[in-house]
Amino acid sequence: MSRSPGRKQENHKISRELFVLTYGALVAQLCKDYEKDEDVNACLDGMGYSIGIRLIDDFLAHSAVKKCRSYSETADMIAQVAFKMYLGVTPRVSCSSATGNEFSLILDKNPLVDFVEELPAERASLCYCNLLCGVIRGALEMVHLAAEVTFLQDRLKGDAVTEIGITFLRKPEDRKHRR
Amino acid sequence: MSRSPGRKQENHKISRELFVLTYGALVAQLCKDYEKDEDVNACLDGMGYSIGIRLIDDFLAHSAVKKCRSYSETADMIAQVAFKMYLGVTPRVSCSSATGNEFSLILDKNPLVDFVEELPAERASLCYCNLLCGVIRGALEMVHLAAEVTFLQDRLKGDAVTEIGITFLRKPEDRKHRR
Repeated sequence: MSRSPGRKQENHKISRELFVLTYGALVAQLCKDYEKDEDVNACLDGMGYSIGIRLIDDFLAHSAVKKCRSYSETADMIAQVAFKMYLGVTPRVSCSSATGNEFSLILDKNPLVDFVEELPAERASLCYCNLLCGVIRGALEMVHLAAEVTFLQDRLKGDAVTEIGITFLRKPEDRKHRR
Repeated sequence: MSRSPGRKQENHKISRELFVLTYGALVAQLCKDYEKDEDVNACLDGMGYSIGIRLIDDFLAHSAVKKCRSYSETADMIAQVAFKMYLGVTPRVSCSSATGNEFSLILDKNPLVDFVEELPAERASLCYCNLLCGVIRGALEMVHLAAEVTFLQDRLKGDAVTEIGITFLRKPEDRKHRR
């Protein structure tokens, strides 16, 4: 009574629901482990960073993207290719500084919080999706782009949208060049 | 077993790599938290159970499956519909008992361990993917099927395949009926 499996085993997509619930279990575990929201946030960011530095290879292999020539192009790439590929959503991108190194990814709907109603009162400072910031930071670092990545707005905290801010840290030679 | 072909499915898919790496972060965190493998295994099973009892609604809503009429049909459903839908793979099913209530799901390749080479020597009793057992157990319980779900073989431990054993626990009236 043995049945052979379907022919094509290789499929690189899985259900978002399973991911969202597993991610929720991870955050819940960290909330058990750490009393302070800041520690949970830092831990999620660190985990994300470790994931990002591994995920970049997969991204470059599967996306067939070319080298970005500007911060703006890089931000677009993250939103339109990486988010689409990994989370199935495409955030809007806005450039939020005159210096051209600060960008926002704006999510009208955050796929990671499908099953989360709101943060508990005692976890008001929790950045529930902080793993994403770490992933972006780690992946960017592997293509030699240092960046600060943080949540600027979060619908879980009552904001109208969820906004991830990316500030590319200029290299010393960039600064020199601009003088 | 009828299922409308991936109509709305695309929006509900995410990259397996991100899931696999996030799951790895979860297991690593639990290994930090608990010294004994048994405790990590129990925690993963418990988390999976909580996920399973929520995921079953999603499964019933998206799979459009009909009520199963036998344990055998249920095992097939788990392998061919649920695993396919949530993990993108289809395990083989084998019935491993004459009494017809014990089944094995056999995975030649386990999608959750893509980035795991082998278990560290000090974690030899870790059931790395034990979350899956919990998910199956939780989901089955929500359709009134009590079951024990455990790993019987694991490629991470040097076995040729990964095998998840499902033993449906007969209800008292079943036993009475058989006398």
